[in-house]
Amino acid sequence: MLPLHLQTESHIPLYVQLRDQLRALVHSGDLRTGDRIPASRELAGQLGVHRTTVANAYAELESEGLIEGHVGRGTFICGAPAKQFSPLPRANGNGGAARWEALFADERGDEGLSRLMPDVPPGAIAFTCARPPDESFPVEEFRRCTNAVLRREGRRILQLGATDGYEPLRRALVEWFRSEGLNVRPEQLLITDGCQQAIDLVCKAFIRAGDSVALENPAYPGAVSILAGARVRMLPVPVETDPARAVGLDVDALETVLLQNRVKFILVTPDFHNPTGTSMSVTQRRRLLEVAARYQVPIIEDSIYARTRLRGSIPPSLRALDTHGNVIQIDSFSKIAFPGLRVGWCIAAESVIERLRLVKLSTDLHTDQLSQAALAEFIQRGHLTRLVAKARKRYQSRLAAMEEALEKNMPHGTSWTRPEGGMTMWVTLPPGFDAGDLLIHTRERGVYFVPGRYFYFQSPLPNTLRLGFSSVDEKNIARGVQVLCDLLKSELRKRQRGNREEFRARVAVI
Amino acid sequence: MLPLHLQTESHIPLYVQLRDQLRALVHSGDLRTGDRIPASRELAGQLGVHRTTVANAYAELESEGLIEGHVGRGTFICGAPAKQFSPLPRANGNGGAARWEALFADERGDEGLSRLMPDVPPGAIAFTCARPPDESFPVEEFRRCTNAVLRREGRRILQLGATDGYEPLRRALVEWFRSEGLNVRPEQLLITDGCQQAIDLVCKAFIRAGDSVALENPAYPGAVSILAGARVRMLPVPVETDPARAVGLDVDALETVLLQNRVKFILVTPDFHNPTGTSMSVTQRRRLLEVAARYQVPIIEDSIYARTRLRGSIPPSLRALDTHGNVIQIDSFSKIAFPGLRVGWCIAAESVIERLRLVKLSTDLHTDQLSQAALAEFIQRGHLTRLVAKARKRYQSRLAAMEEALEKNMPHGTSWTRPEGGMTMWVTLPPGFDAGDLLIHTRERGVYFVPGRYFYFQSPLPNTLRLGFSSVDEKNIARGVQVLCDLLKSELRKRQRGNREEFRARVAVI
Repeated sequence: MLPLHLQTESHIPLYVQLRDQLRALVHSGDLRTGDRIPASRELAGQLGVHRTTVANAYAELESEGLIEGHVGRGTFICGAPAKQFSPLPRANGNGGAARWEALFADERGDEGLSRLMPDVPPGAIAFTCARPPDESFPVEEFRRCTNAVLRREGRRILQLGATDGYEPLRRALVEWFRSEGLNVRPEQLLITDGCQQAIDLVCKAFIRAGDSVALENPAYPGAVSILAGARVRMLPVPVETDPARAVGLDVDALETVLLQNRVKFILVTPDFHNPTGTSMSVTQRRRLLEVAARYQVPIIEDSIYARTRLRGSIPPSLRALDTHGNVIQIDSFSKIAFPGLRVGWCIAAESVIERLRLVKLSTDLHTDQLSQAALAEFIQRGHLTRLVAKARKRYQSRLAAMEEALEKNMPHGTSWTRPEGGMTMWVTLPPGFDAGDLLIHTRERGVYFVPGRYFYFQSPLPNTLRLGFSSVDEKNIARGVQVLCDLLKSELRKRQRGNREEFRARVAVI
Repeated sequence: MLPLHLQTESHIPLYVQLRDQLRALVHSGDLRTGDRIPASRELAGQLGVHRTTVANAYAELESEGLIEGHVGRGTFICGAPAKQFSPLPRANGNGGAARWEALFADERGDEGLSRLMPDVPPGAIAFTCARPPDESFPVEEFRRCTNAVLRREGRRILQLGATDGYEPLRRALVEWFRSEGLNVRPEQLLITDGCQQAIDLVCKAFIRAGDSVALENPAYPGAVSILAGARVRMLPVPVETDPARAVGLDVDALETVLLQNRVKFILVTPDFHNPTGTSMSVTQRRRLLEVAARYQVPIIEDSIYARTRLRGSIPPSLRALDTHGNVIQIDSFSKIAFPGLRVGWCIAAESVIERLRLVKLSTDLHTDQLSQAALAEFIQRGHLTRLVAKARKRYQSRLAAMEEALEKNMPHGTSWTRPEGGMTMWVTLPPGFDAGDLLIHTRERGVYFVPGRYFYFQSPLPNTLRLGFSSVDEKNIARGVQVLCDLLKSELRKRQRGNREEFRARVAVI
């Protein structure tokens, strides 16, 4: 067996470690010309890594001419780097077929997002969602808006458009911001296909492989997925979730991260952070801006939940507090209106918007104009403001139902955050307890949630879980939380009994 | 002045060359601790490169701790790599403001796409477009489709959807393909935000910085832009445009490229290649597939113009001819229906689609569902088939008008391609003539086209130009081509006169 030792904790990608160690074995003479190395599947099994990791390492070594694969025979060490890539011999099996697995660039962290959207059977109680329920959609009003814009400006909508966005939507947004007391110039605005794309565009504009980004841990898995794909070194900043303390991003910890690392940007959700539901106080926001300015590190402010505030006063956004132009704010219609329309926006300094506009141009030319036009009309007719107000009432009642149910049923030793808005709440179970185990039991009773572990990109706390309250009605919230708490209590009793028996057994031995 | 020599022809990015040369100067002792190096703007001027290039090199050296920037004072060589990144001193000017320019990852090749869409004044004759004219849009039929789907399935459309596409559109496409005699299984299909995004997703799935891709030269600048952004080494494959020969991608040249390089994939537009308008014969397609299979290199087939065939018989696509599953076909509604709706699709082997689906999930979750639903209805009501047939007649007449006008007015020594479809024609002027110069004159007379140079990513031929015929009516085609030819003739006469005078002058000297 080859003397290979991969470090899964390292920020160096596994395939790079493997590639470098194999190369070193050739250079040291431990592997020689003509030596056969294990098939990727075999070596993956030995090392306990995904086969693509080995395939990637092999692909790179092959492109360096250090190893050579012969279909049907295996992979061999070459003497000297080959100067020409001679045609591969045709094999019987898949001769001529591309070896797709070896060609993929890497395994991106994509399970993350898929795991958030499990298949939930009809009739189940799904605390898994963090989005508006579709019974809240004013479909008829929206249909009339679509009709009106297609009648009035159909040709313009259907023709190729501007990369920075459909002009009427840009105008409607700027006016809407003004009605909220925010001054945004059109040159500071870029329409995107939602926040997910906004993060992707920011990464494309700023990131080179190996760059570092500081972000909350736990975090929104969609962001982690993009950063992993861009080969970013993710630096975790803890989030305080204990309601007895100042909740939200730990700015002291962030400062330590900035002191010890060259950070490309900070990604943060100051309002109703997904998954924890925590928000940063104005004091913490000012400190964050001050620290970021001191290290001249830009901040990406994810404001996607900001307009879903359910109680407490509205703190200014980081962008509003910032005096240096260091904040790129991203936002979307997904949480306040319709997730199925992929429309969001980005507010930043002019030079940043211009850069992001060029990146967007080469990414997808522009955002779909039918939805842009319809949403512009939806804003101008006042539907959006009404929808946001109506949703707020709905979520207030659901949040209250959830808090009441937790208060009533949760056993001693558990805690949960006190969100002032957003769509999720974060529950911490007694230490040593695994929310994944609990899910196995609740699922049997038709109750679904997302284990907190799925949101950590480092050092997960298995005793945490996320409860989304936006998409479940009050009755089902009460029922679902009770099921969850009953099962939790029963599991805790089992554990205590186990402990007692263990204790008695020990006593008996003595 | 520093002894720096950048090679613009190299495939090594300029900023990497600069970074490495500066690092070498430090290691050799030519630059020492405390030495001040020029400001990025100044050095960029000296080297004749973009300021971002220098900023990128400096940013990397700074992150290595080799140089250090002090706001207001300049950039200096450091002794040893700094272990901690101490807060930068606050300057008076932009203290605390992020230095955005130094933070951008690179200069992507984005001018490419912008240059294709110049601002054309109203009333001008724009041969610049390669898209359907908006007077062709059946807005009323489309509006009724939108209405119907919002009435029938509004909630589902507006709610978060599946990454591989809106189910009714996927079904409608599969049926439509079947009506064309193509068998596509749903697992082989992924809905994208158009071909531009499809190329971007393919790059994300396959490309690591420094990988090589073979593609036509000249090429669609949108593809070049994505590849440049992904730091791809682009390997040019010439396109034969002489109507007297077998036009299209030069497969012999491609084979040489594959022999000499490890190529990640081949990007090719076999039908009505943009910009040249050439199509590959069935024989050439078979050869291309055979060569690609021999080297086990996948092919990305851009079929965006394939359904705009105006004459000749329909050759099978590369995907249809391929027996190895080596082809990823990308396509879109942009050229056959509405460019303002960003909806396209991708057909490939199941394992590839699954990979691309995960990449798309982390890129923008899914494509906008309102347009997907409306287009599904548009297909099912038969509107798309009728629209394609109608557009074909329109373009046939326009192509005929353009060929007639060129035949009638073009001076001797010029040639042009004979497209059998698509939306563009490629004109070659006498050698030594610059189409960019001609544009200066035609623009004054209200006639616009795109110089061929904009489509080459290597070794541009300045005496070429692209004429789009889809968006100009017959009368304006005749007028526009006449203006273009008149000015061309007059420029040619000037040149001949110049030559004659030069000749006389020489004779006189003798």
